[in-house]
Amino acid sequence: MKINCPDRQGIVAEVCMTIANCNGNIIDAQQHREDLDQQFFMFVRFEINELSCSRTELEIRIQKKSEDIGFRWTLSYSDVPKRMAIMVSKYDHCLYDLLLKHKYGEIQADIPLIMSNHADLETVAKHFNVPFFHIPRTRANRVEADQKALDLFKEHGITFAVMARYMQILTPIILDAYPNKIINVHHGFLPAFKGAKPYHQAYAKGVKLIGATSHYANEELDMGPIIEQETERVSHSYSALDMVRIGRDIENRVLITAVKAHTEDRIIVYKDRTIIFE
Amino acid sequence: MKINCPDRQGIVAEVCMTIANCNGNIIDAQQHREDLDQQFFMFVRFEINELSCSRTELEIRIQKKSEDIGFRWTLSYSDVPKRMAIMVSKYDHCLYDLLLKHKYGEIQADIPLIMSNHADLETVAKHFNVPFFHIPRTRANRVEADQKALDLFKEHGITFAVMARYMQILTPIILDAYPNKIINVHHGFLPAFKGAKPYHQAYAKGVKLIGATSHYANEELDMGPIIEQETERVSHSYSALDMVRIGRDIENRVLITAVKAHTEDRIIVYKDRTIIFE
Amino acid sequence: MKINCPDRQGIVAEVCMTIANCNGNIIDAQQHREDLDQQFFMFVRFEINELSCSRTELEIRIQKKSEDIGFRWTLSYSDVPKRMAIMVSKYDHCLYDLLLKHKYGEIQADIPLIMSNHADLETVAKHFNVPFFHIPRTRANRVEADQKALDLFKEHGITFAVMARYMQILTPIILDAYPNKIINVHHGFLPAFKGAKPYHQAYAKGVKLIGATSHYANEELDMGPIIEQETERVSHSYSALDMVRIGRDIENRVLITAVKAHTEDRIIVYKDRTIIFE
Amino acid sequence: MKINCPDRQGIVAEVCMTIANCNGNIIDAQQHREDLDQQFFMFVRFEINELSCSRTELEIRIQKKSEDIGFRWTLSYSDVPKRMAIMVSKYDHCLYDLLLKHKYGEIQADIPLIMSNHADLETVAKHFNVPFFHIPRTRANRVEADQKALDLFKEHGITFAVMARYMQILTPIILDAYPNKIINVHHGFLPAFKGAKPYHQAYAKGVKLIGATSHYANEELDMGPIIEQETERVSHSYSALDMVRIGRDIENRVLITAVKAHTEDRIIVYKDRTIIFE
Repeated sequence: MKINCPDRQGIVAEVCMTIANCNGNIIDAQQHREDLDQQFFMFVRFEINELSCSRTELEIRIQKKSEDIGFRWTLSYSDVPKRMAIMVSKYDHCLYDLLLKHKYGEIQADIPLIMSNHADLETVAKHFNVPFFHIPRTRANRVEADQKALDLFKEHGITFAVMARYMQILTPIILDAYPNKIINVHHGFLPAFKGAKPYHQAYAKGVKLIGATSHYANEELDMGPIIEQETERVSHSYSALDMVRIGRDIENRVLITAVKAHTEDRIIVYKDRTIIFE
Repeated sequence: MKINCPDRQGIVAEVCMTIANCNGNIIDAQQHREDLDQQFFMFVRFEINELSCSRTELEIRIQKKSEDIGFRWTLSYSDVPKRMAIMVSKYDHCLYDLLLKHKYGEIQADIPLIMSNHADLETVAKHFNVPFFHIPRTRANRVEADQKALDLFKEHGITFAVMARYMQILTPIILDAYPNKIINVHHGFLPAFKGAKPYHQAYAKGVKLIGATSHYANEELDMGPIIEQETERVSHSYSALDMVRIGRDIENRVLITAVKAHTEDRIIVYKDRTIIFE
Repeated sequence: MKINCPDRQGIVAEVCMTIANCNGNIIDAQQHREDLDQQFFMFVRFEINELSCSRTELEIRIQKKSEDIGFRWTLSYSDVPKRMAIMVSKYDHCLYDLLLKHKYGEIQADIPLIMSNHADLETVAKHFNVPFFHIPRTRANRVEADQKALDLFKEHGITFAVMARYMQILTPIILDAYPNKIINVHHGFLPAFKGAKPYHQAYAKGVKLIGATSHYANEELDMGPIIEQETERVSHSYSALDMVRIGRDIENRVLITAVKAHTEDRIIVYKDRTIIFE
Repeated sequence: MKINCPDRQGIVAEVCMTIANCNGNIIDAQQHREDLDQQFFMFVRFEINELSCSRTELEIRIQKKSEDIGFRWTLSYSDVPKRMAIMVSKYDHCLYDLLLKHKYGEIQADIPLIMSNHADLETVAKHFNVPFFHIPRTRANRVEADQKALDLFKEHGITFAVMARYMQILTPIILDAYPNKIINVHHGFLPAFKGAKPYHQAYAKGVKLIGATSHYANEELDMGPIIEQETERVSHSYSALDMVRIGRDIENRVLITAVKAHTEDRIIVYKDRTIIFE
């Protein structure tokens, strides 16, 4: 359960008692305060296998409490997994990594579909037994293509999507339907190298570290709230192609970390920044 | 406040309510369960500037609650800083780092004294205006020396000590007086390279990473509960002396991290392992 | 080209002149001296597309020079790729990583075959179009199994092999045929945690970092010359299963780094340690 | 010795032979090619304790060879240490680190003076027995101040300077006298966060890593050729002040690495990027 409200005393205890009164067993409770504007954020994980009431009754009580003391809340159940769509173009490294980590049980979500603007990666989808949908997309037809994708997502009950090097700029059609629910991976250390060919930009500038960034997609290119970043050391002897190679591993790492945090509902977006509980 | 008890439902809520009833404002609550033997651990940080009762009254209530539901607890106040003794021999890098970080306000403890078996580092102590005590120590007189040190510690109200490359094996005289309260730094990645000249051991074995470990000192050499470890990359071209050089920085980092965690009371020792809250 | 001899003056120049006289263009020359026993090692990479003589003639001249001034040498050509066998059991993460990196052109070797003591990973082999051979192996038949594997390797011109979590202890039959040519990955930070279940050993000891090690296999379990090591941070809240999960990524990284160094002929084994040029 | 010329065959051998003919013993030779514009760079380290001719004669021969085949070269002797000025304001962490590492023998340079626009750090200079000069500097008198500093540098035979958080923008008076010889440390991951308060910029942007950059100072603020960069992980719970604290360690590390590379003459600046040999 995630909670946000203006900071005041006693919230933690009130929330914990509400859960305890239903016989929920708290196994993790994390708090955060934004000092600048006195906002309070809380993340509580609790077991409900011995719950003394129904889930509906639990939610009613939380709602009542939230109205009493004034907080916003969302609650998710680990036995109701999120449904993730993977969007890809031609690069396959993030796709393989997501599907393998999913197979190992590291990602607690269902993957009902892979969607691509190219047909190339259908064999990978087949190998992992995930339905694959090919929706060609050009500058001319991108509104129709995004509408088609949105319909597909709705039809399959998709709750969030991952742009696994999808390499396309989404239109508001799909962005507005999934606000802070579409995760992108940018192959550069934002905000340093936005836009195209960031590794080539990094090479030209002579940086000694290159990075990758996962973030929620919004309408500004490579500008949504940052979820995770990593860097790796490079030297003068690395060509831009070497950086592309090293980048593949960094991209995988920041994307997986973001997907895990999202599926476990540990992320709160607040004012273009992310608060990520552990 | 740190709490430990056998795991059962409702503890978090009970503890939080006890604090809230005294108008304490919880700003951080972390839990941990050891699954193997069903132990529960909790760390709560709360503000008491608007406390509705005295500190004594607060502690009485917590004690009553602890008897009701059965938990062990310790409570410390951030405005009652711990008192830290630094023990050194001739190496000065850890000493400088501790004194500088203390000067920058990163270590929330008082430093009433520096104690050494050599006189070499008195100038460093003077430069930072910390009283320096020279207690020579040989194999023959080490019991007397440790007794002298213990008396000195008691006289100055020392609550914990740091062996900043002290390079001596303490006797039970002082260890028993400060159980899990003396932090040592070992210049090797334990448990791999115990004892003398660990960097030379690492060189001979051809490892590609070297490390350092901070841990609570106990009577077995380099074997107390591990607090922090770090490694750095080395290659075939590094001599054992190069490793000593790299080691200095790693030693500083693992020691400072341990000292901070200890002064902020975030460490629980359980069965030779440490649980460290954040 | 790799060179080893007792250290003496002028070797670098002599070697470089020999290459230059054949119109080879040196693009990289690295040296290393073991100070303890005055050994000299050299690694030279040079282009031969404008060679003024045949490769055979070049080798004759180098051989002559080596007899004059006394050095051992080996020479390999980048257009004659090594031939790598992959040995697996049931874990697939290292296998996927090797095959993907090979597909991306990061590993300069042919992969004529995958060999396993189980049939499970045949589908992975098929997906990447690599022939798969199933050689069941028990404690009773391991000599015969290794002989069979050796025959298979010889038949396919295998020049080195990778134990991608093969989880078997090889007999001398195959080890002696491929000295310092079989790369193993151990899921622990050697020499700390040898043998079975290293992550469980690490958990019990309460270490704050876990690691993995790639090394050349020899007859002592987990004891051959170390090629690469990496560590990742863990905390008290990580179960042994979490460590297994984190371990998968570390294992991939140390194994790939070792395979690359081996295929590019950048490793010299000297006295149980590796010298690895860049 | 560092060499730069258009790439062509045989340079390495020619250079090595020239050195060998004087009985110099090459212990390290590194090359680099910029593929885009066919430039060749070489770094050679050789022992001259058994040189068959004078140093002057050696240099004459190298000069002759350079004219024959067309390369630029510079040569420095490890027994003629560079002379380093340290420039500071009020922050002392980089100053302590430089002086300690110098004391440990890690920096092969003399430190004839520390210069500051404030008097605060004179006690640190005294503690390490380094002459301290106070040259006040305001927006109004900065030309005179830089002239004074330059005179001071010249008088003490300063060959390069380190801005150890000097926090001033130098005028061309001193920059032109020491081109690519003044090392600055910027407390941000360039090119992302230039100018003032980079940690506050990083906080506002919600980045998950913060960094520091050492570079040669030139007339554009925080824009000279990058020498070294590092990053550290931060989270939503870090205040801008926490970042300042973490930043201190990163700043120390990137500055020391840069100073070492410079004193060992391993850096070549080429087109706003640095080539750094090892």
